[in-house]
Amino acid sequence: MSEKPTEDPTQAEASVPAAEGAEDAGPSKKAQKKAEAKAKKEAEKAKRAAEVKAREAAQKAAAGGGEDLAKQNYGDITHLIKVDAEKVKLKDLGEEHLDKTIKLRAWIQNSRMQGAKMAFVELREERNWSVQGVMATSEAGEPVSKQMVQWTGRIRLESFVLVEAIVKKPLEPVKSCKVSQYELHITKCYLIASGPQELGMTLGAASKAVTNVEEEEPEAAVTEGIKDLNIAEAAAPGASLNTHLNNPVMHKRAPVQQAIADVRMTVRKLFADYLESKDFVQFEPPCLIGAASEGGANVFGMKYFEKQAFLAQSPQFYKQFEIAGGRKRVFCIGPVFRAENSNTPRHMTEFTGLDMEMEIEDSYLEVREMIEGLMLYIFRGLEEKRAEEIELIRSVYPSEKFLLPEAGKEVRLTFAEGQKLLREEGPEEYRNVSDFEDMSTPQEKALGALVRQKYNTDFYVLDKFPEEARPFYAMEDPADPKVTNAYDFFMRGQEILSGGQRIHIPELLEKRLVKKGVDPNQPGIKEYVDVFRSAGVPPHGGGGIGLDRVVSWYLNLPSVHLSCYYPRTPKRLLP
Amino acid sequence: MSEKPTEDPTQAEASVPAAEGAEDAGPSKKAQKKAEAKAKKEAEKAKRAAEVKAREAAQKAAAGGGEDLAKQNYGDITHLIKVDAEKVKLKDLGEEHLDKTIKLRAWIQNSRMQGAKMAFVELREERNWSVQGVMATSEAGEPVSKQMVQWTGRIRLESFVLVEAIVKKPLEPVKSCKVSQYELHITKCYLIASGPQELGMTLGAASKAVTNVEEEEPEAAVTEGIKDLNIAEAAAPGASLNTHLNNPVMHKRAPVQQAIADVRMTVRKLFADYLESKDFVQFEPPCLIGAASEGGANVFGMKYFEKQAFLAQSPQFYKQFEIAGGRKRVFCIGPVFRAENSNTPRHMTEFTGLDMEMEIEDSYLEVREMIEGLMLYIFRGLEEKRAEEIELIRSVYPSEKFLLPEAGKEVRLTFAEGQKLLREEGPEEYRNVSDFEDMSTPQEKALGALVRQKYNTDFYVLDKFPEEARPFYAMEDPADPKVTNAYDFFMRGQEILSGGQRIHIPELLEKRLVKKGVDPNQPGIKEYVDVFRSAGVPPHGGGGIGLDRVVSWYLNLPSVHLSCYYPRTPKRLLP
Repeated sequence: MSEKPTEDPTQAEASVPAAEGAEDAGPSKKAQKKAEAKAKKEAEKAKRAAEVKAREAAQKAAAGGGEDLAKQNYGDITHLIKVDAEKVKLKDLGEEHLDKTIKLRAWIQNSRMQGAKMAFVELREERNWSVQGVMATSEAGEPVSKQMVQWTGRIRLESFVLVEAIVKKPLEPVKSCKVSQYELHITKCYLIASGPQELGMTLGAASKAVTNVEEEEPEAAVTEGIKDLNIAEAAAPGASLNTHLNNPVMHKRAPVQQAIADVRMTVRKLFADYLESKDFVQFEPPCLIGAASEGGANVFGMKYFEKQAFLAQSPQFYKQFEIAGGRKRVFCIGPVFRAENSNTPRHMTEFTGLDMEMEIEDSYLEVREMIEGLMLYIFRGLEEKRAEEIELIRSVYPSEKFLLPEAGKEVRLTFAEGQKLLREEGPEEYRNVSDFEDMSTPQEKALGALVRQKYNTDFYVLDKFPEEARPFYAMEDPADPKVTNAYDFFMRGQEILSGGQRIHIPELLEKRLVKKGVDPNQPGIKEYVDVFRSAGVPPHGGGGIGLDRVVSWYLNLPSVHLSCYYPRTPKRLLP
Repeated sequence: MSEKPTEDPTQAEASVPAAEGAEDAGPSKKAQKKAEAKAKKEAEKAKRAAEVKAREAAQKAAAGGGEDLAKQNYGDITHLIKVDAEKVKLKDLGEEHLDKTIKLRAWIQNSRMQGAKMAFVELREERNWSVQGVMATSEAGEPVSKQMVQWTGRIRLESFVLVEAIVKKPLEPVKSCKVSQYELHITKCYLIASGPQELGMTLGAASKAVTNVEEEEPEAAVTEGIKDLNIAEAAAPGASLNTHLNNPVMHKRAPVQQAIADVRMTVRKLFADYLESKDFVQFEPPCLIGAASEGGANVFGMKYFEKQAFLAQSPQFYKQFEIAGGRKRVFCIGPVFRAENSNTPRHMTEFTGLDMEMEIEDSYLEVREMIEGLMLYIFRGLEEKRAEEIELIRSVYPSEKFLLPEAGKEVRLTFAEGQKLLREEGPEEYRNVSDFEDMSTPQEKALGALVRQKYNTDFYVLDKFPEEARPFYAMEDPADPKVTNAYDFFMRGQEILSGGQRIHIPELLEKRLVKKGVDPNQPGIKEYVDVFRSAGVPPHGGGGIGLDRVVSWYLNLPSVHLSCYYPRTPKRLLP
């Protein structure tokens, strides 16, 4: 590899103090505060390290002497071994297992010794399914020896172990574990993969709301995370989003993140299920394209053998090509790219688009209604299928219930009606908003608040956007060419979907391109118009949703980066 | 747009004769032949154009004089209009519709006049569902006038029309249409979107096997396509793959292409369905990555703000990160990229990967068996759900039935057993193949033929690949470190899947990286190893399938580009 490393931790660290120094010659208040916090954390860390050392020394001393009769029942295993007991998942644990021997594989999420002869370990399986494991030395030195207990007590947090145990009732319910009515009396314990000496971020910290969604240089934050967050206690403070993303394994092990991922993939699945039930077929648009077709702004370009290639900003043209190619209704789900140098919790450079397109028979309202039905199906499906996950997420990221319109009372305003509402009932600064100028984001939010108040819904449609606010392929309303057969869908006052009827007649398309100041013969555009020239294309329309935004805004997350598996921003390409 | 056009037809055309001239000073035999063919085609074209002109003139003359009483029942419509009759899909047409008035929207796929008072049009709806439409002038001049018949007879091929008609029994079954037992007596006909004056490729040509799968410069072929293929007759010769891809709308309208697309998306869906039934969850890996992690060869790089980014060659690392992050079983479906300058019918630069990864409990065979079950589910599912499409495809691209092993008789050979078979029963040149050197593609094909002959199956597994033939993350067999717990799956002697157990212990991973000559601290690799250092990761394994190859080889298509929606090659980024 001859490429220069794209992210160099040493560089990033070196540059931070320099940048601060340039701002102010003496130590700033902020820097002082930071130094104090750092000193405090260092002291805490030293104290904790001393405690661990002392405990380990004590254990070592206690373990000395005497033959180990339980040698075969524990230890570090390099390769897989078999334990013959019945495999039971924690979520399936029931009365029928009492006093039975079972096996499970789990992470050690907490452990403590009680004297030299007893160890308590919290074992976590999937998600937040955890159980208390107890290990006590046997009188006979077998199946559990003193050495075995002490070895177990020393297993590092987040190690992965294979355990054989007898299911018992605890003296009282174990509050710290999701499985509170049973505990496991461990008879075998093998270490399959060890956790690290120091965790970059504890599960406790990872399970809390992120403390800061701003992006710093990720390189700097890796180090910060490792230094600051070696805290095993559940009372750990939260960590910044950057620390989360720089510790992907612990970030992902947090139940709240797995719940968000489940909600995300359920939205994706409900999207496909609904459309398939309406005879849509999925297709695959390309990511690599030969021309920056949609205007050329914010598009990633790259060398492509002897040519240049670009990354698709949307599957718009390709959805239309499928309709032109004889498909009646199509959808696609995949990555889209925007080379926008925006460093906000709302922006990413790669995200997942959910897109659909369909033939229109009598009116573009067929499309609007299809999308409305689709979104309501998704929202109602989430409430039904992911109630538990949504509750868990709300316990970390509080949000109000997402209000849906009653069936038959869906809210559809025209753009002009929306502006009128803003003028008449909105904040002072919107007294003069125009029916023919696009809305700003704050304006949209203000309208969202008015709609919620008036119609008791967080979901609504704004239709008939002014011609000036829509791209060249939007079909003008034949009855009033100042507006288009195009709409936006909103969630909590934020746009999640843009769509509408497209122009299917090449002559109309050319006319509108010229009106918009786009050369109909420029690369990418010409090939697009040619498609409509090459055969008769039925009238059609559709829309595109950003999956990341739908999830984030439904859950009211503080950053869209939390809803994504591997968020990409101008500053972040890792992990 | 300031970018230079990436594809310039004039340049491409100009460069072709120059290149030929350089080879041979006088006109070559090939050039002469080409010129002759061109002259012949030009003559044919002129003849056809004359015919069309004559017909149009005759129609115009016949239509002159007399008031048109059917004016409202036909014509070119700019915007959508409503027809009140019942909408019936051609595939649902039955005896209950006889003598009823229905409406449909369809493409004109063929038309001819019979005298001046009768027109026959073939109407095609979805896929290959077509019906014969008949229009004859009414005595009263209404609902069908002479003008209306002649206007209808002049509608261009592949125009999209809205038709009202009465369902009738034809005198004899209409052999040229899929709906042969009924015909439609047209009472209204509106042109929604017109076809072109000359089709770039007729449906007849598009519906035949491609004549040539080699890639020429696509720019040159566009022109060729338009010149050569202005033939409406079903007896049209086939067109080259290049002509197909340069005429995407007609290419996609061909029933065989829609059938291939249906098979493709069914494979994709069966893949997801099976894995979901086994508790796998889908996730989304990124396309943009910060380091060329898998060796750096054949990777697309690009400027990314102040850094460099790369396009992912596989989701391998990310699948493993999900397992490390606490998911037990994951899969993903999405684009992957290879910057390989190979111009063969087997290669593309962007394709769809179907990938899965799962925890291993006792043995890596759990993964091998999961994938085997998955593939058999897909193959059996195709036979069940897409029998009709497969039959249609085979009528264009003949292929032998894809042989599956009987349940319980799946074929799994070790790599060494495969090599032994080749040595003992294969062609002469494989007498000395080694158990520790990777197979070549011809070697794989020879083995595939032997397996088919011996075990009567086109699908089998080759397991325990030599260590030298597998990437650094492959787990060596603890019992014999010269081989790995890794396998390939084959279809018709061609590899479709690579997979196996991965190394989950960071120390082992480092050791193997060094052995393979990879620096464990290089960008991308370091972050990967760090994941296994950051917390205990369960043993795991998986595999990745190329969707394009599975579809192409199952159907025995002459080019993988035929199975893809928008194939991308070093020479092709359009449409």
